[in-house]
Amino acid sequence: MNISIIGATGYSGVELIRLLVKHPEANIVAVYSNSQAGKTMQEVYPHLTHIFTDSLTKIDCGRIRKEADAVFIATPSGISGQLVPQLLDGKLKVIDVSGDFRLATPELYNKWYGKQTAAQEYLDQAVYGLSEWNADAIRGTKLLANPGCYPTATLLSLLPLLKEDLIDGTSIIVDAKSGVTGAGRSASLGTHFCEVNESISAYKVAKHQHTPEIEQTLNHLTGKEVLVSFTPHLVPMNRGILTTSYATLKEGVTNEQVAAAFSEAYEGKPFVRLRPGAYPKTKEVYGSNYCDIAWHVDDRTGRVIVLAVIDNVVKGAAGQAVQNMNLMFGLPETTGLEFTPVYP
Amino acid sequence: MNISIIGATGYSGVELIRLLVKHPEANIVAVYSNSQAGKTMQEVYPHLTHIFTDSLTKIDCGRIRKEADAVFIATPSGISGQLVPQLLDGKLKVIDVSGDFRLATPELYNKWYGKQTAAQEYLDQAVYGLSEWNADAIRGTKLLANPGCYPTATLLSLLPLLKEDLIDGTSIIVDAKSGVTGAGRSASLGTHFCEVNESISAYKVAKHQHTPEIEQTLNHLTGKEVLVSFTPHLVPMNRGILTTSYATLKEGVTNEQVAAAFSEAYEGKPFVRLRPGAYPKTKEVYGSNYCDIAWHVDDRTGRVIVLAVIDNVVKGAAGQAVQNMNLMFGLPETTGLEFTPVYP
Amino acid sequence: MNISIIGATGYSGVELIRLLVKHPEANIVAVYSNSQAGKTMQEVYPHLTHIFTDSLTKIDCGRIRKEADAVFIATPSGISGQLVPQLLDGKLKVIDVSGDFRLATPELYNKWYGKQTAAQEYLDQAVYGLSEWNADAIRGTKLLANPGCYPTATLLSLLPLLKEDLIDGTSIIVDAKSGVTGAGRSASLGTHFCEVNESISAYKVAKHQHTPEIEQTLNHLTGKEVLVSFTPHLVPMNRGILTTSYATLKEGVTNEQVAAAFSEAYEGKPFVRLRPGAYPKTKEVYGSNYCDIAWHVDDRTGRVIVLAVIDNVVKGAAGQAVQNMNLMFGLPETTGLEFTPVYP
Amino acid sequence: MNISIIGATGYSGVELIRLLVKHPEANIVAVYSNSQAGKTMQEVYPHLTHIFTDSLTKIDCGRIRKEADAVFIATPSGISGQLVPQLLDGKLKVIDVSGDFRLATPELYNKWYGKQTAAQEYLDQAVYGLSEWNADAIRGTKLLANPGCYPTATLLSLLPLLKEDLIDGTSIIVDAKSGVTGAGRSASLGTHFCEVNESISAYKVAKHQHTPEIEQTLNHLTGKEVLVSFTPHLVPMNRGILTTSYATLKEGVTNEQVAAAFSEAYEGKPFVRLRPGAYPKTKEVYGSNYCDIAWHVDDRTGRVIVLAVIDNVVKGAAGQAVQNMNLMFGLPETTGLEFTPVYP
Repeated sequence: MNISIIGATGYSGVELIRLLVKHPEANIVAVYSNSQAGKTMQEVYPHLTHIFTDSLTKIDCGRIRKEADAVFIATPSGISGQLVPQLLDGKLKVIDVSGDFRLATPELYNKWYGKQTAAQEYLDQAVYGLSEWNADAIRGTKLLANPGCYPTATLLSLLPLLKEDLIDGTSIIVDAKSGVTGAGRSASLGTHFCEVNESISAYKVAKHQHTPEIEQTLNHLTGKEVLVSFTPHLVPMNRGILTTSYATLKEGVTNEQVAAAFSEAYEGKPFVRLRPGAYPKTKEVYGSNYCDIAWHVDDRTGRVIVLAVIDNVVKGAAGQAVQNMNLMFGLPETTGLEFTPVYP
Repeated sequence: MNISIIGATGYSGVELIRLLVKHPEANIVAVYSNSQAGKTMQEVYPHLTHIFTDSLTKIDCGRIRKEADAVFIATPSGISGQLVPQLLDGKLKVIDVSGDFRLATPELYNKWYGKQTAAQEYLDQAVYGLSEWNADAIRGTKLLANPGCYPTATLLSLLPLLKEDLIDGTSIIVDAKSGVTGAGRSASLGTHFCEVNESISAYKVAKHQHTPEIEQTLNHLTGKEVLVSFTPHLVPMNRGILTTSYATLKEGVTNEQVAAAFSEAYEGKPFVRLRPGAYPKTKEVYGSNYCDIAWHVDDRTGRVIVLAVIDNVVKGAAGQAVQNMNLMFGLPETTGLEFTPVYP
Repeated sequence: MNISIIGATGYSGVELIRLLVKHPEANIVAVYSNSQAGKTMQEVYPHLTHIFTDSLTKIDCGRIRKEADAVFIATPSGISGQLVPQLLDGKLKVIDVSGDFRLATPELYNKWYGKQTAAQEYLDQAVYGLSEWNADAIRGTKLLANPGCYPTATLLSLLPLLKEDLIDGTSIIVDAKSGVTGAGRSASLGTHFCEVNESISAYKVAKHQHTPEIEQTLNHLTGKEVLVSFTPHLVPMNRGILTTSYATLKEGVTNEQVAAAFSEAYEGKPFVRLRPGAYPKTKEVYGSNYCDIAWHVDDRTGRVIVLAVIDNVVKGAAGQAVQNMNLMFGLPETTGLEFTPVYP
Repeated sequence: MNISIIGATGYSGVELIRLLVKHPEANIVAVYSNSQAGKTMQEVYPHLTHIFTDSLTKIDCGRIRKEADAVFIATPSGISGQLVPQLLDGKLKVIDVSGDFRLATPELYNKWYGKQTAAQEYLDQAVYGLSEWNADAIRGTKLLANPGCYPTATLLSLLPLLKEDLIDGTSIIVDAKSGVTGAGRSASLGTHFCEVNESISAYKVAKHQHTPEIEQTLNHLTGKEVLVSFTPHLVPMNRGILTTSYATLKEGVTNEQVAAAFSEAYEGKPFVRLRPGAYPKTKEVYGSNYCDIAWHVDDRTGRVIVLAVIDNVVKGAAGQAVQNMNLMFGLPETTGLEFTPVYP
């Protein structure tokens, strides 16, 4: 499989390179970046010295359609919406790691992102790539919308409970914590070491663009009504997302039912590890494609608290994108992705 | 005022020293530690070289009653419950920074702490030292129960709303994040740098001993029924607590009413800084006695989200203890506490 | 004393505010910043809410000459060289925290900084503000060149040994480690959290502009010939500098002689704490104006290794600047500077 | 190849598991730990859930001799000296990751480690496993002494220069910086998060046990006289070592000669990446077996400064151990070790 990567110099892009250079079936044929065109990857990322040394070139959709079997788009939001119409032609499979094809309508996208994306006809072609829950549709698509980092951990936490009708969909509160890679590689005061280190803060309270992605997917995949309070926080670490999800259990729901819902949902899913009663640390999935999930039923308050950790750059971005590529090409889901977490 | 400190070698104890050596009215006459008796403070904490160099001695309640006008107890939980009955005599004022005198009954304490505390007659004498809300009672007491770190940020966030009846007391969810000083100075795998750094995790979900302290105080000070889900998290930083509190607004409550409740509650309170709509960082109160509070009304979900940050070692422990000492001795609340946050 | 601050929005500038708002003899009358003019300080630094809320204005040298008894200049290098000639007039005392007035000639400055500074006649008026070694000259000057952060720790480590002729001045190697505040508040890839965190690296090897400052001052204050290898490193922390200085002991020099040299040099110096045989941590001076110095004589190699730690923003910048201001106005050196380190 | 691991619960041990579970020729048959016997690996390290779930058992040398083709010993120092005589029998290959077999004599070991190791006859059988410099001897041995973390980076930095006689062996100063994994997993005040975070310090100045290992190996492999000042520092990060090595160039030595020495030494060595003039970050080798080396010739002082970075847990311990295993079993050196650094 010949692979091209657009936006190879962001953190998701360079992680795609880490994963794909060792992928037994993939061959990176070109890396694109309008801002860094002309440089080699190792100039931009010296850790790739001797490993991946191709030069970056300006985005050329025509060339990509010819040379590649699949293209990953790892640009900031607002760009792939313009590129995809030029790429969706013939055999090329498009995997969009940005947010442009995740929401159902251009209007919803515009409301939460404050930008424009592609027209409805293109959004309609996109399949949402939550690998564990949407594999059949993923296998058949040529346009994949890779899930956001926060939604991945949140959805894997809540879908089993909502599907089995164990929780009240309007009671959901998701308190999420992310490492700084989630903010991208652009230099800004908000990502300055001294401003982030030795501190924690919330941001975009009640306004984060992953909120509708979570609500929409919960609803689409379970048919239940949901309304979600979602609060992201910035944690002084590079990688990792922890979501702490709260929901009111329906009357009489037991710990056993909760456990059964998770077991059934993730039976045979290689990248979800169920750890009931545990306190997973983001470090325990560092550099890997795992999502570790723990749950705690609180009889006192009638709520279930679900903890989920992922590496936001892997399962939350590049890793799940490769997992989806595997599905789209009929490969075993785990191909090239069996990394043991780097601990500590 | 002659001051003694019991448990001077923990993080709260040594912070009391930082605050009291510059306090214009206080004079530390002795520091006690059973585990480190015989050492000088600067052997245990070299940063105190040339600043505070007294030797530690074994706890001696008789001597303390004679020498001191006030004694701070900064021991782990389960100890001051035994010491206080030996100290409460004559003029001595006792400020307990541990949790032993915060809960209403020995049974409640035993249920959440898994330990014994003092008898009911002693618990009944204790006044809960949330300075901004209980100043009158604090001024008159000889036994002060200094609030826990998490409860301080949580209570300051929620009391104005509950008192004005703007939120549903049974809808409260508090997602709290703390630096590692909160775990104390004892060496353990859980505080090992490599296990904590570059990671975040929850702990004691639905079991943390600060839960009943929060519920009890909300109820005592407002008369409202409450039931709180409280989840603490460990953040890779030394100091700081951020609490993200969620509550369902009562029908029709407006942003203006919320703002008015906060303004009224903290008018003239020097250590609470209201920052509506902001995203306070724990770093912005680092080393100081401030609690910064921001709130966000989410019309979409009908919830209010309140963010509060404190330095857990200052306003969450030693700083509030000194603030209470000031009240108990009739001094201006701010005496010796006007530290500008150390930023960044 | 009326004080103005130019460049108040950098890390040194805002630290000057932290120190001066509590200084019993100082009164900040104006803060200047060309880049942030029009904003209030608390907009730029929310931690100053309720503490210091003046608005920033564009630099106005005429106004400063009228309103201020002293002005601190905390701009990036290359700016104060232009400003000082407009300020040096009448009674105004100028304290330059940037590097523009530290080197002996415009040519030397240009060689190492790659920029222009003021003319020779202005450089000649500047007194180098290493408080512990140059107090008499400092007291008499109207133009003070505040030492660089690395030179402060290095010079305090080596001057006693060189002055007593105990080491070979051409054998000196200084391996220095700094927190990221040393790089300033400007956003860049080099200060991006994810690029700095969980990593250490050297920079500007054999090229750092503090090298000639160290050599020149060692020579001026001791008359000895010196040649110094200086290597700075970036450490994933906010504040703190550790210098590890190596020098070959002259034949027959004993540990006792080394100890005597340090004792004599720093007898009665309130901000230098001698800790022979210790391993000072930068955290042990955090937020304070101390410099802690330890030394280790290695008989096996015939070298002495001197360890010195400072808070680079305090003793390495704003703190020493205030210490110098105290000297220039005839105040006790420690006025407004007796901060206990914030630990941990 | 059947592999046993003694001391599997330390950081080197668990990293061996990460590397060996994906090694195409290795099969871990048993993991040993006296302190944690009876537990499963995933109880001790939850990140291994679903990946490696064997139980730990007490060390049993007889069983190891029967079941294993190779055994890794990753215990604290002082233990393998006792175990190896019980293991060295028949075909079993022993790879000692601790320091017990690195120094030439029991006396030298005792002097620097303050402990006992095995008798001279056993030390004599050990081959020092610096893979890039000693491959022939490594291939033929049954007892391998895996190099220390600091010596690995230091030796790879200095051997090319000393071998080509470009530097004065008695002028060498090595200033080394390590992440906290180097201190092991044992809980102590010295590894407590709050004591290490936001700080840097030196330790064991002129006393570190890696000093004689560096000197002895430099001498053995080049025949030159050397005397080394070695100073380790603790950096607030998990993984990574940076060594900054200083040496006086011999008269007339040019930058070209230095470059040629490095090129020649590491031609065809897959894990050494030469980056002349660069400032390698430890993060750029994170999780990989690379050693990145940069050098800077300073004409002003006549010195060369060599910067080398490794992941101390990989190239500085488990990775080099597997590299040596590959050599000992006639496999390509890179088998199972081609990890791209995890960045950022």
